[in-house]
Amino acid sequence: MIGVAVVGYGYWGPNLVRNLSEAAGTELIAVCDLNLDRLAAVRGRYPSVAVTDDYEAILRDPRIAAIAIATPVSTHFRLAMSALMAGKHVFLEKPIAPSSEEAERLIEEAERRGLVLAVDHTFVHTSAVRKMRELVEGGLGEIYYYDSVRVNLGLFQHDVSVIWDLAVHDLSIMDYVLPARPVAVSAMGMSHFPGEPENIAYLNLHFDSKLIAHVHVNWLAPVKVRRTLIGGSRKMVVYDDLEPSEKIKVYDKGITLKGEFQANGEAVRQALIGYRSGDMWAPHLDIAEALATELKEFVGCIETGGTPVADGHAGLRVVRILEAASASLCQRGRVVELEPARRVA
Amino acid sequence: MIGVAVVGYGYWGPNLVRNLSEAAGTELIAVCDLNLDRLAAVRGRYPSVAVTDDYEAILRDPRIAAIAIATPVSTHFRLAMSALMAGKHVFLEKPIAPSSEEAERLIEEAERRGLVLAVDHTFVHTSAVRKMRELVEGGLGEIYYYDSVRVNLGLFQHDVSVIWDLAVHDLSIMDYVLPARPVAVSAMGMSHFPGEPENIAYLNLHFDSKLIAHVHVNWLAPVKVRRTLIGGSRKMVVYDDLEPSEKIKVYDKGITLKGEFQANGEAVRQALIGYRSGDMWAPHLDIAEALATELKEFVGCIETGGTPVADGHAGLRVVRILEAASASLCQRGRVVELEPARRVA
Amino acid sequence: MIGVAVVGYGYWGPNLVRNLSEAAGTELIAVCDLNLDRLAAVRGRYPSVAVTDDYEAILRDPRIAAIAIATPVSTHFRLAMSALMAGKHVFLEKPIAPSSEEAERLIEEAERRGLVLAVDHTFVHTSAVRKMRELVEGGLGEIYYYDSVRVNLGLFQHDVSVIWDLAVHDLSIMDYVLPARPVAVSAMGMSHFPGEPENIAYLNLHFDSKLIAHVHVNWLAPVKVRRTLIGGSRKMVVYDDLEPSEKIKVYDKGITLKGEFQANGEAVRQALIGYRSGDMWAPHLDIAEALATELKEFVGCIETGGTPVADGHAGLRVVRILEAASASLCQRGRVVELEPARRVA
Amino acid sequence: MIGVAVVGYGYWGPNLVRNLSEAAGTELIAVCDLNLDRLAAVRGRYPSVAVTDDYEAILRDPRIAAIAIATPVSTHFRLAMSALMAGKHVFLEKPIAPSSEEAERLIEEAERRGLVLAVDHTFVHTSAVRKMRELVEGGLGEIYYYDSVRVNLGLFQHDVSVIWDLAVHDLSIMDYVLPARPVAVSAMGMSHFPGEPENIAYLNLHFDSKLIAHVHVNWLAPVKVRRTLIGGSRKMVVYDDLEPSEKIKVYDKGITLKGEFQANGEAVRQALIGYRSGDMWAPHLDIAEALATELKEFVGCIETGGTPVADGHAGLRVVRILEAASASLCQRGRVVELEPARRVA
Repeated sequence: MIGVAVVGYGYWGPNLVRNLSEAAGTELIAVCDLNLDRLAAVRGRYPSVAVTDDYEAILRDPRIAAIAIATPVSTHFRLAMSALMAGKHVFLEKPIAPSSEEAERLIEEAERRGLVLAVDHTFVHTSAVRKMRELVEGGLGEIYYYDSVRVNLGLFQHDVSVIWDLAVHDLSIMDYVLPARPVAVSAMGMSHFPGEPENIAYLNLHFDSKLIAHVHVNWLAPVKVRRTLIGGSRKMVVYDDLEPSEKIKVYDKGITLKGEFQANGEAVRQALIGYRSGDMWAPHLDIAEALATELKEFVGCIETGGTPVADGHAGLRVVRILEAASASLCQRGRVVELEPARRVA
Repeated sequence: MIGVAVVGYGYWGPNLVRNLSEAAGTELIAVCDLNLDRLAAVRGRYPSVAVTDDYEAILRDPRIAAIAIATPVSTHFRLAMSALMAGKHVFLEKPIAPSSEEAERLIEEAERRGLVLAVDHTFVHTSAVRKMRELVEGGLGEIYYYDSVRVNLGLFQHDVSVIWDLAVHDLSIMDYVLPARPVAVSAMGMSHFPGEPENIAYLNLHFDSKLIAHVHVNWLAPVKVRRTLIGGSRKMVVYDDLEPSEKIKVYDKGITLKGEFQANGEAVRQALIGYRSGDMWAPHLDIAEALATELKEFVGCIETGGTPVADGHAGLRVVRILEAASASLCQRGRVVELEPARRVA
Repeated sequence: MIGVAVVGYGYWGPNLVRNLSEAAGTELIAVCDLNLDRLAAVRGRYPSVAVTDDYEAILRDPRIAAIAIATPVSTHFRLAMSALMAGKHVFLEKPIAPSSEEAERLIEEAERRGLVLAVDHTFVHTSAVRKMRELVEGGLGEIYYYDSVRVNLGLFQHDVSVIWDLAVHDLSIMDYVLPARPVAVSAMGMSHFPGEPENIAYLNLHFDSKLIAHVHVNWLAPVKVRRTLIGGSRKMVVYDDLEPSEKIKVYDKGITLKGEFQANGEAVRQALIGYRSGDMWAPHLDIAEALATELKEFVGCIETGGTPVADGHAGLRVVRILEAASASLCQRGRVVELEPARRVA
Repeated sequence: MIGVAVVGYGYWGPNLVRNLSEAAGTELIAVCDLNLDRLAAVRGRYPSVAVTDDYEAILRDPRIAAIAIATPVSTHFRLAMSALMAGKHVFLEKPIAPSSEEAERLIEEAERRGLVLAVDHTFVHTSAVRKMRELVEGGLGEIYYYDSVRVNLGLFQHDVSVIWDLAVHDLSIMDYVLPARPVAVSAMGMSHFPGEPENIAYLNLHFDSKLIAHVHVNWLAPVKVRRTLIGGSRKMVVYDDLEPSEKIKVYDKGITLKGEFQANGEAVRQALIGYRSGDMWAPHLDIAEALATELKEFVGCIETGGTPVADGHAGLRVVRILEAASASLCQRGRVVELEPARRVA
């Protein structure tokens, strides 16, 4: 039985508390928040769980082996670092930190101390995204493109742009699903409200191959869209997260090249493009709650010394792309390289 | 009664022939094509229409006042220029020409001779696009963004990229609908097949204001999408061309800013963003065939000396953006300015 | 502050408990269930609420003024009757009772004692259904038909047919929305599993006018459908409960009759039917939880002596139709009259 | 080369003429219509085809071996009978005749003379309906129900009810797809316009098994729906004819009964119903025009002495159900038996 605490009981914290209070293998010992009304809400619903606004008390409590942090991103580094230094395993909201430098320091600290550092890339624990990875590894052939649209009306953030708020989901999914990692990023976007961060943005991810990836995020769209297309040389996928049951559709469609490529003097080619249109198939997906799966994995890693799917390095890779995209956004879409050395990290 | 000829009886020509043979105000005199089988097909269906593979004969025929050209874009300049020089009015497939220089010369020639030069920007004659323009002029408020997705499987072109084939539609619609004209373009794309032009591309259009426009075109998508979002400060529009009847949906949705912006020493602001969610409304749209409307306008312009909605200048503006986008595509998405002087043309 | 108890903590009871524990104006005093595990679950979540498996204790408790009953329908009469006889107001799950006779006795008892008897026809408290009623009263013109499809896979019931389980929703909505009440019912259906009640059924409701109503319910459908069409002489409505936001769409469409009806010897008519196709409009709908609205109304009625929208009479009318439909179902769809005297009740 | 004539150039006739003029194996010799304007239209488009308003001339013409009839249903019997008596093969619009008696006489005449009598049940020649039959024969298991909705706004007929106009499609599809034939019919409906036939109707088809079929047809619906559900013991199908490509979806979903059925004194059962939810699959469908396939089959039958899929007997079976449904409609939905002797025919 692993004792855990949750820090931050705002938008996402209640989901952590609910899952951790019901999970086998964990005992939810305390919830920490600076807001006393929120603590009262916890006390009302979970009378056996201690509440406190004193984070130091959490750190000192020897019964608490792991801390789940769901506070604003600007506080991630400080809270997570002191948790690690107090010897606690950490489960951290995404994005892992507001800068790659801080993310790196968290990784180092966790590794030095042999502690588990997990980032809450929730989507990679959904059956839909896992199926996509399976398909990318299995039947799609060479991956040509990844295109994602994630738009709706609200919720405007004031401290981070729509990229840090919405594209972070796509980047964490891509990090998990795609067979390659981007080498450069460019981004265009706009803030339509004075003093606010960008509310619409388009990201291009560049790879060392013919793979091309693109993300459209928008807080100001009239309709909600959560749709990803993956084009492969053999099959193609549509992932529509708003579909109640058939979220993943696999299309046995594509192009067949019957061309001859000869090179005598200059390349002579008579390409004959054929169109192949076969069945569509929507695999059955389990409907387990992703967060429950994820927390179970976190606990399992603590027990066995394993590494979570979304570990600190995954969190770092995503933050590096977010940083580069933000830099590009300020420079009218200039391509920003992702340094190779750091990519390997 | 205006005598007309159609040149090119391939993919689009039959629609021109059918419409011109049925239209009031025109007499379809001849159809010209180099392919004799196609001419035989015309003869079978329209026995009273002359057929020929000799374009010079068309140019010499004094009964023919206007020529509709539906040939590959590489032949547009030569055929249109000789038609204009022979004193014929010209209706030209989109894009008007493969280069802005040729487009400019066609415009000059037509203007010098007082001839009508129309470009077949078909979509601007649909009731859906006309309604969008009405809404942009009327109720949407300040336009924040224009986002279009035009993807499906096939038809791959071998001589032009997906931008020239598909984005040309979006650019002609934007040229008609938007209150401002772009000042710069950037584009990313990829060819996944050796020796073939780009089959997927993303265009960003930059404006002198906070307006931002983006187009996604793709010949290799598993599903067909034809969807445009327009975000305004007061209302927002979804235009889905695949909807059988409700192609245009107007959402009375948006953001309300109740912020105070004070500047003492450093800017202090307490923005309060509110979300407004009202009715949705799908205006009834006529279902007249766009091409019939367009040809009627062309004939009207010949009769009255008027200027078509999609004249040579509209065609030129679109080609300039296509050229700039192609240039950007080769330079990894570098922003390519559209020269101000030329923009005015 | 009105003291309430909830009886039955199975499928729906937890929603009652959650709403009543949070509602202003009520104090949730006790929860009663025969299953001790369920009571333990209540104690864990709501430590200040008493739990008991002794219904008599609830009836005796003077602090409890009202009882909400969410138990199997076969127990409704006994539990509700004893609650009324103990002087408690009653909020009763739908259908009100397994027979109209029992429903009548509950109504009589409540009326004699001046107690509020509400039936949980949840849908009539949704903004979508309220909007439909408004439209039926307002802009649709004469109502021609009401057609509802409510199908999906599962949850099979073993004690009642799909009519009592699913069609009860449609009947309660119709009771609230339609301007007239049915005079007869016929129903066809089938049980595909030995010993089980009918899992698919079609109901026809007959009216004294040209109004026709039909309901399709099915526990064994591959897809979930929750769609109602209402045809009026002036406008038509589609109500799709699965739409996340635009649940109600109003179509300004219809038929215009420009006929002349003359009768000389035999009727001579030259009807000219015209088709009118105007705008579609999706009114904005509030997203308040229906059950909260409903319980608030229940409490208000207790305080002011008012009558709930879905009172015992509404519950009775629905049960009469269910009874008649069940009778028809056993007789291959024979039309079963709803006795006029009883209709008035 | 089989010489054919088309009689009737109204709504459907032009499709027959176009297909027959392009088909291999047939020579379209003449088109007959009483309306001279229509004949002029034929002459304009098909200058080599003879036109006439004299049906006798068609019958006398020895070059004409087969006649395709697309006139109002009230004329079917007279025109088809005289064609058969003149020794011509007949391709007849659906429904085959306004009464089963007339249909029977046509069948007898055709059989006595060894002539092909085909009914234009177009849908049974679509790849979607053929796939459904394949699935019903193959993987769906025992068929539990067939449910079809065919509604939209217009086109109102004045001489026949919506059943004869729209349900005829469903009945011909069912005749082709289902493994059993109905033994009885009931129908409810309403005419909302004085002197007009029923514009909305609901049909129930009864079988000798647990199969149940239902059809909803409506000329006065705000939206167009063309959707059929087939429930089988192993799999289920959704056929949506408005889907551009995935018209057929097969759901590997259903119920599994793990019950024990014991009979000691009275039947004791503890049924355990399980829900199975597997993949969905949309088979690729060819997009050949159904009418072309159908006419090719007709010609093939003439050449080889074969029997068309939709022969006179299929046409008769459909008309018998239409007759019975009409009778039921007038009697408030009374169940009308389809006589066993005649069913066999």
